[in-house]
Amino acid sequence: MIDAVGFAAKNLDSSLERHEFQRDEPGEHDVVIDVMFCGVCHSDVHQVKNEWANTVYPCMPGHEAVGRVSRVGAAVTAFTVGDIVGVGCMVDSCRSCDPCQNGEENYCEGPNSWLATYNGPMIPKAKAQTGENMYGRDNTFGGYSSVLVVNEDFVIPIPAALPPAAAAPILCAGVTTYSPMKEWGVGEGHRVGVVGHGGLGHMAAKLAKALGADVTIFTSSTAKVAELVAAGLDAVHEADTDRLKSLERGFDFILSTIPQRHDVNPFVMLLKKGGVLCVVGALEPLEPVNNQEVAFHRRTVTGSLIGSITETVEVLEFCAEHGITPDIEIIPIEQVNEAYEKMSSGEVRYRYVIDMASLSAV
Amino acid sequence: MIDAVGFAAKNLDSSLERHEFQRDEPGEHDVVIDVMFCGVCHSDVHQVKNEWANTVYPCMPGHEAVGRVSRVGAAVTAFTVGDIVGVGCMVDSCRSCDPCQNGEENYCEGPNSWLATYNGPMIPKAKAQTGENMYGRDNTFGGYSSVLVVNEDFVIPIPAALPPAAAAPILCAGVTTYSPMKEWGVGEGHRVGVVGHGGLGHMAAKLAKALGADVTIFTSSTAKVAELVAAGLDAVHEADTDRLKSLERGFDFILSTIPQRHDVNPFVMLLKKGGVLCVVGALEPLEPVNNQEVAFHRRTVTGSLIGSITETVEVLEFCAEHGITPDIEIIPIEQVNEAYEKMSSGEVRYRYVIDMASLSAV
Repeated sequence: MIDAVGFAAKNLDSSLERHEFQRDEPGEHDVVIDVMFCGVCHSDVHQVKNEWANTVYPCMPGHEAVGRVSRVGAAVTAFTVGDIVGVGCMVDSCRSCDPCQNGEENYCEGPNSWLATYNGPMIPKAKAQTGENMYGRDNTFGGYSSVLVVNEDFVIPIPAALPPAAAAPILCAGVTTYSPMKEWGVGEGHRVGVVGHGGLGHMAAKLAKALGADVTIFTSSTAKVAELVAAGLDAVHEADTDRLKSLERGFDFILSTIPQRHDVNPFVMLLKKGGVLCVVGALEPLEPVNNQEVAFHRRTVTGSLIGSITETVEVLEFCAEHGITPDIEIIPIEQVNEAYEKMSSGEVRYRYVIDMASLSAV
Repeated sequence: MIDAVGFAAKNLDSSLERHEFQRDEPGEHDVVIDVMFCGVCHSDVHQVKNEWANTVYPCMPGHEAVGRVSRVGAAVTAFTVGDIVGVGCMVDSCRSCDPCQNGEENYCEGPNSWLATYNGPMIPKAKAQTGENMYGRDNTFGGYSSVLVVNEDFVIPIPAALPPAAAAPILCAGVTTYSPMKEWGVGEGHRVGVVGHGGLGHMAAKLAKALGADVTIFTSSTAKVAELVAAGLDAVHEADTDRLKSLERGFDFILSTIPQRHDVNPFVMLLKKGGVLCVVGALEPLEPVNNQEVAFHRRTVTGSLIGSITETVEVLEFCAEHGITPDIEIIPIEQVNEAYEKMSSGEVRYRYVIDMASLSAV
């Protein structure tokens, strides 16, 4: 076993605290990674607070991890010691369902879907012990930790052009917004809206622009509108009804990154005939959608879940090629609880990344 | 002016009654049609009861009209006296917006969208009089009448192989279900679900089967399940949770024809990865959709509105070619109020069609 240390919530009521644990020794296809940086995603907050009612404690989040390979299993060919690599939201999948066979592990239809980098198969321990768990474990510990041991198929090469800390958020925030834009063909001449301008939203705006689209950002933050407009971007306050009215039927594709239940109807109104609204932030019931506005212009409301391993490799290369990096604030791990509060209040600009070297000081 | 008679609701509280009125003399591009049959659509009930809050009284419904051409304007070339023709939901559109230019008048983006066969531009009289009405009239009277005068571009040829009474429901129920199936590529080998088995649903099931799909019908009527299964069709009661569970992730395309607010989540669960649920019946806010189930399998919820004139011609030809006709019950017009009640209680099998010859007896 490999001694490891990370930050975890022991139960629903606890904040994240230092937690010592052990990782399995690497199998022949596994890669051992000394974690250097890990992004802080809004999903981490949801999961720690059991807001999806499926948290297995202790809960050690982190699915935007970048580190250095320190050891590889005997059969590993794609990675060698010293490589800078990433681990995103998934560390395994069933490998045999149609989506897995077609390189879309993020839509794995195996008995427990894909194996999450943290919180394991996302089912409580009691249920895991009934044998309903193909992965043979009821929890996984994520990237808020000193070391990860991951099957090589779920390890992502990080392009040399990307600083490791800045690459981290691309592993979730980047691919989660890139995948649907590729799926729905966002490109040159398209008018794209991005709703919410946090970790996902700010990456969506950069990626859409690099894909050739004309981008408008919608946010509920007056401060962000001012900052974005000052930076030369097109930003609209969600309550600016005059501007919203003027934008009706103007957009080919709108991505909603708001990480909680919300009303998508004002954005449905902004879609052209045949336009697509894709909701990636809120994994819960949305406010009722008025099908009159959907049907009258054959609009579509859809969703998308992270992206495949192939797409993750692709978006990292795309970012390297186009000089895109997320706007990050690097924090020591002892500030992670405070960071959660600042994320919830919208203070972050725009992604916290934990410097995992700080672990040794706590 | 042309003397005409029909059945209309004088106000919100009245039933449909005989109503004498006058139609304009035909312009050079107009066709005068002696109405023989008119289907009774659930929209007629919604409109008469002002359930969309946009009814202009008197309200004379009817947008599934089939009749014989009795006169044509001087410039009409496509139709001659004696032709059997149909009039569906639209009698005009702006002609200049992108959808109109591309033969999708049903998505007209002109100031008042397309002109409905009844209830005019669907805005109240007061608003129409402010000049916001491009069509210059605040109401139109539909096919529950002795005669229609319609611009030739919105007159549909009825194939000789189709009995006029049976052709009538194809003009709305047929094209409304055919258009989205064509748009989303329903065909050979597809698994299609049809939710609701009324006027639209029963046509959807026939059309999907003729397009090559494997069809399952979902209904809340125990009686209909029994009838459909006895007829060799696959029918499932909406409350049959065991069967629904067994069908999860089984469908490429599901069409919901339920004509009121409903919960689409049980049907979202039945979609394969990337599957499409299209809601054509309910033109109002739906129950909240759980985006977790949408996003986890990149499913889509969309809507569709009737179909274009081109698609209406196409679906009539498709029905003629495949021997498809709706199951109709022909009624005299004095039974229309009773028919509305029977539609609302689900007694109709499956579309009432008014024999307009009965008008002369009342």
